Amino acid sequence: MRSVQDQLAAVLAAVGPVAPLDVVLSDASGCILAEDLVAPADVPSRPVAACDGYAVASGDLHGAGAPVLPVAHDVLAGDPAALRLAPGQAVRIASGGPVPAGADAVVAAEDTDRGAVRVALHRLPGPGANVRPVGADTVRGAVVLAAGTRLGARQLAVAAASGRGRLRVHPAPRVVLVSTGSELAEPGTPRRDGGVYEAAGHALEAAVRDTGATPVRVGVVTDDRAVLSEALEDQLVRADVVVTTGGLSESQHDTLADVLAPLGTVRFDQVAMAPGFRHGFGTVGGGAGAVPLFALPGHPVAAQVAFEVFVRPALRAMAGHTDLFRPSVAARADVGWESPAGVRQFVPAAVVGSPSEGYRVTPVGDPGVPSVTGLAHANALAVVGEQDTAVVAGQVVHCLVLEG
Amino acid sequence: MRSVQDQLAAVLAAVGPVAPLDVVLSDASGCILAEDLVAPADVPSRPVAACDGYAVASGDLHGAGAPVLPVAHDVLAGDPAALRLAPGQAVRIASGGPVPAGADAVVAAEDTDRGAVRVALHRLPGPGANVRPVGADTVRGAVVLAAGTRLGARQLAVAAASGRGRLRVHPAPRVVLVSTGSELAEPGTPRRDGGVYEAAGHALEAAVRDTGATPVRVGVVTDDRAVLSEALEDQLVRADVVVTTGGLSESQHDTLADVLAPLGTVRFDQVAMAPGFRHGFGTVGGGAGAVPLFALPGHPVAAQVAFEVFVRPALRAMAGHTDLFRPSVAARADVGWESPAGVRQFVPAAVVGSPSEGYRVTPVGDPGVPSVTGLAHANALAVVGEQDTAVVAGQVVHCLVLEG
Repeated sequence: MRSVQDQLAAVLAAVGPVAPLDVVLSDASGCILAEDLVAPADVPSRPVAACDGYAVASGDLHGAGAPVLPVAHDVLAGDPAALRLAPGQAVRIASGGPVPAGADAVVAAEDTDRGAVRVALHRLPGPGANVRPVGADTVRGAVVLAAGTRLGARQLAVAAASGRGRLRVHPAPRVVLVSTGSELAEPGTPRRDGGVYEAAGHALEAAVRDTGATPVRVGVVTDDRAVLSEALEDQLVRADVVVTTGGLSESQHDTLADVLAPLGTVRFDQVAMAPGFRHGFGTVGGGAGAVPLFALPGHPVAAQVAFEVFVRPALRAMAGHTDLFRPSVAARADVGWESPAGVRQFVPAAVVGSPSEGYRVTPVGDPGVPSVTGLAHANALAVVGEQDTAVVAGQVVHCLVLEG
Repeated sequence: MRSVQDQLAAVLAAVGPVAPLDVVLSDASGCILAEDLVAPADVPSRPVAACDGYAVASGDLHGAGAPVLPVAHDVLAGDPAALRLAPGQAVRIASGGPVPAGADAVVAAEDTDRGAVRVALHRLPGPGANVRPVGADTVRGAVVLAAGTRLGARQLAVAAASGRGRLRVHPAPRVVLVSTGSELAEPGTPRRDGGVYEAAGHALEAAVRDTGATPVRVGVVTDDRAVLSEALEDQLVRADVVVTTGGLSESQHDTLADVLAPLGTVRFDQVAMAPGFRHGFGTVGGGAGAVPLFALPGHPVAAQVAFEVFVRPALRAMAGHTDLFRPSVAARADVGWESPAGVRQFVPAAVVGSPSEGYRVTPVGDPGVPSVTGLAHANALAVVGEQDTAVVAGQVVHCLVLEG
């Protein structure tokens, strides 16, 4: 038996960030930036009005009471240049328009009589009022986003404002999902007597997407060697990662091992965990194109637990994240339960509470018989260590917090 | 001037969940379930082995020391039926295989000598050991997922295991994004003197996607009435929501208002907030096909703040969520800053701390001149109430926590 810790260490030693790629902004969303983004120019490149109003020289207005100024001309956003403001005059300016040389403030239209020829100002502006100075958004030469930054909406705004239509990122890994098992039927199709609806692959498709990676679900492949071999070889070209589910029982294991042998090096182990202790991990595809392959148990709960424990951290590492793991909390068990000796047990559980009050945890369903319904109603996996054979009520248990 | 609270109330009064639709499982990912999902059958439909091993009658083995039993036959996962176990015999069984009538426990292969004709058991099982009972995963007739549930990986596993290939959900709203402004250039293309790179639409595309909705970014449309009108009419057919950015300055506003007038009812208001106080909201498209339209300010920071305050809660409501708002924390200000009178101010800010230590907040950049770079480095929006004209150091400020 191999420990969970050793298996995870082997996985993380074998994976690293996907090679950087230049992608358009919409494809960069959610990715990790693989370059320092240096602003090529000041934005705005000249002082611009922060609102509709009148550009003035604030120094002209001292002691003027409620001044009335002649309006020299109009300036719109995007106008290539503004004329110079003559002393004692105003320029009507639209939000985003360039503030004329000689002006240092904008009086908001709401604070005037909105005159077109002459304008009465109801408020005296201070220097810089309602003016966005040069470089307010980005300063030329500054590293506005550092390599390693996650590109969400706010970060993409900086890239776009800087004029960058493409960014160098660690692209989202493409994860090919193959569900093996002659007993499996696609949901929504007829099922023969003894058949089982395929659920693990459908769940992993959503789990991969939630991780920010791109799932390619191949669907159900029978245990026939030729069919399985062809399906895997076909998909390798498009995969950054391959995940199979099922095919690990003693009666099926030889098939999967034989099919994978010519494709790469996959090691099959018994990992000291529950549910689902049979696991395969290695690389397939050979040479520079070698990609990690995870062979996960077929039961949907065991497959999802294995995904959380091994695959999700690997996908996060491949996407360039440094923060690989889900948040965890220490929670006090409401009830006790048994745990197999020598095995790290992952129990679908409901965690309630708050950081200030503390947390409490209760298994959802029978901890010895994890169920898909129980996992769907859980919001955490309670983790019982290898040395524990039971949790007693009141004991503090480490819990991985799942989404939702 | 209209208050933020009144504007938000008007928005939320005008939107509701998108009409339910039957979609395949992969399209249901992230959506809200619009039906109670009732399990049509017990899963498993018969007791199955939880691991590879030997099915036995645990009662046969009492006091037998280390029993050796004849192996009657083999059972695989998906086998339609298992023969009846004769007293004193064992059946070799694969994980997932049906436990024969007469057997009530499975001895794991690891706890035997793995014999094919006769098997020596190294451990005596209790009744039910390593057997997944009927209904362990789903119980026939039970509501395994209630309407209103968010469909993540774990919930889709239940649906798939129940045999459902399609689910009735509130689909992700399709959000058409139109960036108006003759001064705008697409990032990555040449920009004329005075031109500005379009950033608001690119940021909103990612923000819409992060909300779980589906963005359709039309890109830059000039302020020309005919062009803008045609672009909006073309897109209405595919939209559940339309969001425009820009075109709200006094010089442009008439264009947008005139173009929208024949399409529906959009009200333009000054909303008492900073940054970006000009807003439009209403419905376009007419009749049953009427969809909400948000006209947001053109500056990318103002557009993103408006998205957070008004559009994101609306999109959550349209997707069927009942929890519409981002989490917020109360944080102590590290420094003071000024806030305009009578206006709710949203300041890009960095919040640090933890629930147990408490939180502290510092503005990123000049609170009076919000910048795209500052917002990109912020993790929150500090919210200063309408009645406050300043925040003093040490004051507790309400902060909306943004992602990332």
